[in-house]
Amino acid sequence: MTTEPQTMHADEERVRAFMNRVWNAGDLSAIEEFVSTRYTIHSDPGDPWDGQELDREGFKQRLVASRAAFPDLEFEIDDVVCQDSRVALSWTMRGTNSGSLAGHAPSGSRIEAKGLTIYYVDAGRLTGHRQVVDRLAIVQQLRLTR
Amino acid sequence: MTTEPQTMHADEERVRAFMNRVWNAGDLSAIEEFVSTRYTIHSDPGDPWDGQELDREGFKQRLVASRAAFPDLEFEIDDVVCQDSRVALSWTMRGTNSGSLAGHAPSGSRIEAKGLTIYYVDAGRLTGHRQVVDRLAIVQQLRLTR
Repeated sequence: MTTEPQTMHADEERVRAFMNRVWNAGDLSAIEEFVSTRYTIHSDPGDPWDGQELDREGFKQRLVASRAAFPDLEFEIDDVVCQDSRVALSWTMRGTNSGSLAGHAPSGSRIEAKGLTIYYVDAGRLTGHRQVVDRLAIVQQLRLTR
Repeated sequence: MTTEPQTMHADEERVRAFMNRVWNAGDLSAIEEFVSTRYTIHSDPGDPWDGQELDREGFKQRLVASRAAFPDLEFEIDDVVCQDSRVALSWTMRGTNSGSLAGHAPSGSRIEAKGLTIYYVDAGRLTGHRQVVDRLAIVQQLRLTR
């Protein structure tokens, strides 16, 4: 809220570029550039891959599944905190549920939800994350029965 | 995940002490020491005070209401990221729902949920936060009907 750094931290730059290229544009060919060969989901309640270690193929499958449910998926970054190879992101996701999600037929609903993530970065590549998504907001907007 | 700082950042120390004294111990007399006269909840979906500016009396009411629903409420800190007066915390909350919550009778359930918060700190006092709580986990464990 007070002092802004003069130059953006290299890890913050990498995570912002990762969010744009990989999550927002859905560019599968960018995974190798941004994601480590071993990617650990330390904690991500409700995510089908919570607690798992993914190789790049696993990461690709997770991205494809997420974007299949919401093909116009977009993350807007609200704030960033960066220290010692960790980058915390506060974000808002928006997307239209035009593909099936966890066995539910597409609802066509436009949804918006908040989340916060800590990404772990090593030598410019992401090695994993901790994340909390406001899943209740998504469930309510999709009118799922949990 | 790699380098640990030799000394803990002063803002991180303050936020850790705030979590212990104010949230875990429920020490109302500590609010003046840790919380600014104006505390802004920038974003906290589902929180009754989401989007509001609180004075210390308002902050106290929010604390009292939260701990009334879960008198043994406790936050365990899983990771911290600190930069330029912002402190991001990944945490796990645990508590027994032995008081009423948002008009629902006490369920007696023991609950556990993850959350992530960015706290804003100015001269040692907290001026506000952004937060995402895994509300769906809480709703499911309390068997609420939303």
